[in-house]
Amino acid sequence: MTQQEYRACFTKWAQMSEERLEKLCDEYLPQKAEIGQAARYSLLGGGKRIRAVLALSACELAGKPAELALDYACALEMLHCYSLIHDDMPCMDNDDFRRGRPSCHKQYGEATALLAADALVTAAFEVIAQAELSPESRCRAAAVLAKAGGARGMLYGQELDKKYEAQSATEQQLLELHAHKTGALILAAVELGCIAADAAPATRQALQRYAAELGLVFQIVDDILDVTSTTEELGKPVGSDEENDKTTFVSLYGLEGARHLAQHHNESALAALRELGPAADFMERLATDLLQRKK
Amino acid sequence: MTQQEYRACFTKWAQMSEERLEKLCDEYLPQKAEIGQAARYSLLGGGKRIRAVLALSACELAGKPAELALDYACALEMLHCYSLIHDDMPCMDNDDFRRGRPSCHKQYGEATALLAADALVTAAFEVIAQAELSPESRCRAAAVLAKAGGARGMLYGQELDKKYEAQSATEQQLLELHAHKTGALILAAVELGCIAADAAPATRQALQRYAAELGLVFQIVDDILDVTSTTEELGKPVGSDEENDKTTFVSLYGLEGARHLAQHHNESALAALRELGPAADFMERLATDLLQRKK
Repeated sequence: MTQQEYRACFTKWAQMSEERLEKLCDEYLPQKAEIGQAARYSLLGGGKRIRAVLALSACELAGKPAELALDYACALEMLHCYSLIHDDMPCMDNDDFRRGRPSCHKQYGEATALLAADALVTAAFEVIAQAELSPESRCRAAAVLAKAGGARGMLYGQELDKKYEAQSATEQQLLELHAHKTGALILAAVELGCIAADAAPATRQALQRYAAELGLVFQIVDDILDVTSTTEELGKPVGSDEENDKTTFVSLYGLEGARHLAQHHNESALAALRELGPAADFMERLATDLLQRKK
Repeated sequence: MTQQEYRACFTKWAQMSEERLEKLCDEYLPQKAEIGQAARYSLLGGGKRIRAVLALSACELAGKPAELALDYACALEMLHCYSLIHDDMPCMDNDDFRRGRPSCHKQYGEATALLAADALVTAAFEVIAQAELSPESRCRAAAVLAKAGGARGMLYGQELDKKYEAQSATEQQLLELHAHKTGALILAAVELGCIAADAAPATRQALQRYAAELGLVFQIVDDILDVTSTTEELGKPVGSDEENDKTTFVSLYGLEGARHLAQHHNESALAALRELGPAADFMERLATDLLQRKK
């Protein structure tokens, strides 16, 4: 697979997800309700769809058509989007901008944003429950998404994130925070692809190791971009970590140290793919892509 | 069934739900996280468990042991509890008290309350996904719960409730509001019981009619109690509807008119049960119990 083929494949899967998300909105988040409009505003507002693409890619890697995992992939994007809306709210991070536009509560008010996000997480589980896969598969997918998105996963990460705003974190605490806050959903992405494909245990385990490393790369690069990027490039304010005296991989290791760490975890991610052979080509390029991303 | 037997059965089912909810908290909402503690504070804080009891009762009425629906019943209570936490928040109703205690955000702060409620709704779907019923049943249950709790159900009701704070509602608008805000979950309760029991369509349809009427009775009595009860009795402030100039069944029809209306819908609820014979004894007494409740 060339870099160009990788790009084309990423774009194809991201667009496929985008189109399916629009259809799912029509079904589960009607515009008659203002919360439906607000949910669409945030959901269809230009996400990169990395999690969806990861799920589709895992499904294909496990030997099934990527499309089979499409509804699981979309459910994951819905859950991710709800978490961003709640995270941006005044009582959480109080962020006025997201993806270069006013965040949901700035656009629609707090009450509507709160409920719109609630509608998205609820719809995520409805999408899984109604997906055209076996009932066994759907139950496993719902359980995986709930565990990853719940009090033992992402939400615990959000709690830790809030906690370490007020006090500085050690390296171990930072790793625990991100394993939950970002890592859980990235792991869920490959898990959902594997469930849709009914992947062999060996494939699933390799992808789990890959996803754990990928999640770290993603987060370290996030911390780096907050220092090196511009608000225009990123679509959200930069420099906020330092301003808030937040412990990040950059504050712990410096810019160069953080870059090396990202590199190191990228190599571990690639190592996890090795046993999967050329079928893992896309995943390999994706990891390097996330390492080198500028936004 | 005597009134005493009805009471004993209600208590037994409510306790069964309570005990199961505690176990489910241990599994899905660990106390290591503060959001786990906050979720337990609200969930195990003395709800009446009407929705759970309704689900269990529907399951038994449909010819299966009530316990079969226990996890679905508990999932519904979790979802109900999450909606109360978000509803009490400053950007929504801004209520400082719930069930005679500080509401979740007063006790734990807004950020923790927000995430604790998120954890509860997520856990609700995890509980369903992991219930010991067939995968087909679990998928149907998850879809029903999501539809009832989502943008076409309860959340739309919350939106309308907020909307009609700012402008008065007509009778038709009030009915639409409550059919969504309260009615959807009460309907979901009997639906979940029927799904657990794999109920015959005729049973299910009769219970759907019953639940629609029951939901109205419940809401009308709520409006009446806001005028006639005391803060001590109710465990939350009374008189707030009038203070906020809110359209209620009492503001539309007066106290006597509202009482007659509740009576009327109670009779319709009982009529819906008639074809089910003596098996519906419990449901019949429950309806009258809700009509006559003092809190």
